[in-house]
Parts: sequence; structure tokens; C-alpha cells
Amino acid sequence: MSITPTTYTIIIEQQNTDFTFRASISTLISNVLNVAGLDAEAKGFGVSALNEDNQTWVLSRFAIEVDYLPKVFEKIKITTWISDYHRLITTRNFTLSNEKGEIFGGAVSQWCMLDTNARRAIDLSKLHENYNDYVLGEYGYPIDKPRRILAVEPSQTIVHRAVYSDIDFNKHVNALRYFDLMLDMLPIEMLAKANSLRVDLQYIHECYLADTLSVNYQQQDNVSMFEIKRNEDISAVKCMIEWRP
Amino acid sequence: MSITPTTYTIIIEQQNTDFTFRASISTLISNVLNVAGLDAEAKGFGVSALNEDNQTWVLSRFAIEVDYLPKVFEKIKITTWISDYHRLITTRNFTLSNEKGEIFGGAVSQWCMLDTNARRAIDLSKLHENYNDYVLGEYGYPIDKPRRILAVEPSQTIVHRAVYSDIDFNKHVNALRYFDLMLDMLPIEMLAKANSLRVDLQYIHECYLADTLSVNYQQQDNVSMFEIKRNEDISAVKCMIEWRP
Repeated sequence: MSITPTTYTIIIEQQNTDFTFRASISTLISNVLNVAGLDAEAKGFGVSALNEDNQTWVLSRFAIEVDYLPKVFEKIKITTWISDYHRLITTRNFTLSNEKGEIFGGAVSQWCMLDTNARRAIDLSKLHENYNDYVLGEYGYPIDKPRRILAVEPSQTIVHRAVYSDIDFNKHVNALRYFDLMLDMLPIEMLAKANSLRVDLQYIHECYLADTLSVNYQQQDNVSMFEIKRNEDISAVKCMIEWRP
Repeated sequence: MSITPTTYTIIIEQQNTDFTFRASISTLISNVLNVAGLDAEAKGFGVSALNEDNQTWVLSRFAIEVDYLPKVFEKIKITTWISDYHRLITTRNFTLSNEKGEIFGGAVSQWCMLDTNARRAIDLSKLHENYNDYVLGEYGYPIDKPRRILAVEPSQTIVHRAVYSDIDFNKHVNALRYFDLMLDMLPIEMLAKANSLRVDLQYIHECYLADTLSVNYQQQDNVSMFEIKRNEDISAVKCMIEWRP
């Protein structure tokens, strides 16, 4: 059996663009994470299969780099493969390419598997038997792995109470919703000019319905740094966005 | 030339379900509106074509009824056709069907065309020439047309400042974002039990970045009523959700 990366085609729909008529960064991350879900599902180790055993995938770290943001109605291809797994973390990689077949971005995602009853990470050596067949180490990483994000010295903080539309199927605040809360703190001109960039995300602690989220923001030259705290004291999510010229 | 309604297939993706593992109501509305955009685009009168003439489509009223909310990874089909147009309003209809081919829902959307420079409605008799070819009056309306929503006597009000992630490609607060702000006021048990329902939405006035939105909520038996005001005094959006047994 010869296994190769799998490719999904996505159209940048108008409701997924921002006021610049280009895919918002959230949309690109959402598409990439969605491809991860569809591909895992198609191969028998998606959330449907896992839920039957009270297990689920939880995103731990994520990085994406793009050379530009695709325009409305552009068709992009997202190619995905699992590069490796260790006891607690498995890594799934992605390239993003345009209609000419040119790669304009890459992403690396690192996942834990959670026992939803015990709320604790599962040893990945107990994975679904066929997982090994899909680990394509030789394809490597398309960009640098997600970086560790240092402490943030906030110059601005906003507070948000987690509501229904923030919550995903796992009953956690949605990974993208955290990201939107952070982007919403940036000057609109910075978002209008966004083009080549890198995002690093680190998901440390889950937040739940009715939790109080404090979103802390610091700007250092061309890097926006964020830390979201749960109920004021627990570090929940960290993020770093590098805006490239 | 014989024209019939057009059908699009949609998979309910995990990031579009809520904690009940079913499509959120927002997701269904979003899918329906997205199909409207794709279909208009494919037929030459979508936002891309309109934008070249400084025109755009604006949603005026919308209604959707479903017998149930489809589960994660279910494939649904959305069939769409334009039933009629008058001087200022054109109506596009939808049915939603499941993999067995059973219709489980319908929707009716009413649109204005806006001159984006003059910020005023355009006479639809000046529409793109081929529009008439796609007006399929004989297919009629799948559900009652969007209802006029009466004044709301709020028992609860929340205030939200419009931020980047609320804004769509038209630089208005996104039609679905208003809906999420309203749903977020409901008791979580009501959303957990949601099944058969009807939503009516009436978009009266646009809201923009940094506007203050007051979301007013009133419950009357099995009907949730909402009104969003822009900067406290302008009625911007009204909504009525009928929760059926």
C-alpha cells in the first residue's frame, strides 16, 4: 500500500472574506483545521470514531505562514499529511497552493488525544491500528514548527464572557474564536494591510461557557503578541503574529 | 433554454456544529446564504460582477424553517431558485433535503441591490440582462414569506461594540453575526433542545465598525423576539424564532 498526502479543494466564499475581499486569516486557519477533521474522519480516526470511545482530538499548537491572502472566489488546494507522532503529540502538516499549483503557504498542527471522561491526555501508542499507515514522515514540515511563545507584557486588555456562539462541539471555546478576539484588538489599518505573515498559536488550557476571558495584547515592532487568561489567572491561549513586509 | 433550480451539496463540518453535535442554526442560515452567493456568481450577477459597477446585494428579509437540525458529517442538499422580482426586491428560495432526498426545510430570502457610492437601492428593472432567464416563478415559495416583526418589549438587553470579526466584505456587520449576538442571550437549555423551528429576520439598517449595538430580547411563550438597535436609537435588525414541539 502506497500512501501519499491528501488534497482538498476549497473556494474562498464571500462570507469568509473580510472587507478587503480577501480570505480573512481566520478563514484560512479554519479551512486548514477543517481539512484536518475531514481527513481524519475519512481515514477512520476522526472525532466520530473517537467519540464512540469517549475520546476526542484537541489542538495543542499551530503555526501557519502565507505569502498572501487569497481573493474572494479563488480556489485553493490544501494538502495534508501526518508527519509523526510521539507519546502525547501527533503532528499534521499542510501546504496551501493556488490554482496555478504554486505553494503560497504552509501550516503545522500538533494534537493531543483527550479522554473526555477522565479529561486527560491519552497515550498515542494506543491509537487506532491503522494510524501508522498514514504517518508519512518523509514529507517533513513545510514551515518551522509552532514556536513557544514568551510572556506577554500587555499594553491593552479586553474582557469577554464566553457565550454560546463561542463554544464548539467539545464544549470548549472554539480555537478560532480566541483568534478572532485577539485580532479584534488590532488597529483596523494593520488588518487592511495584512499580506505575508506567520501566526503561532499555543492552546494551553480550555475555556468553557460563561468563563471570563481576559485578552492581553502587546505590540513589538512587526510582531503582535497575545495571551488570553481564563478567569483572570490561568493562561489559556498564547498567540504571536508576525506581519511581514 | 430550459432552466431549473440549482442544487448544491454541503457537508455539515465539525467546526459548524454546536455542542449538541448538530449543525447550529447559524450554520444552516450561513450555508443557505452562501448558496445564494455562489449561485448568483455562477450565473453572472454575483457580487464580483456587481462590484465592477459599484453595486452589491443586500439581504433585506429572510425566513427559514427546519424540521430538525442535521448531525455532524451529514450531507445535505440545498436547492435554490429565484421566484420573482419587483422594483426594489428580488426573492430567492431554497429547499433543504437530506441524503434520502427528503425535504427537511425551506427558506425564503429577499434582496435589494445597493449602489455602493450613492448608498441607495437600485431599480431592479436595470438588472443584468440575463437575470430574467433565471426567474422561475412556477416553483413558488417553499415556506411562508418572511414575516413583519412587531416591536419588542425587552426584558433583557446587552450592548456590543462592533469589531473587525463582526464586519463582512461590504463593511457592514455580518448578517449572521447579528443572529449569533441574539442567540447568545438565550438560556443554553433552550438551544440544547432546539429541533423543529422557524426563524424570521428583518434587516432594516446597516451597522458599521465601532458602532454600539444594543441587543434587546423578549420571550413570549415559544417565541423568542429580538431587536438590535444601532447607537441606541436606530432599529437595525429584528428577529423572531419560533421553537416548535
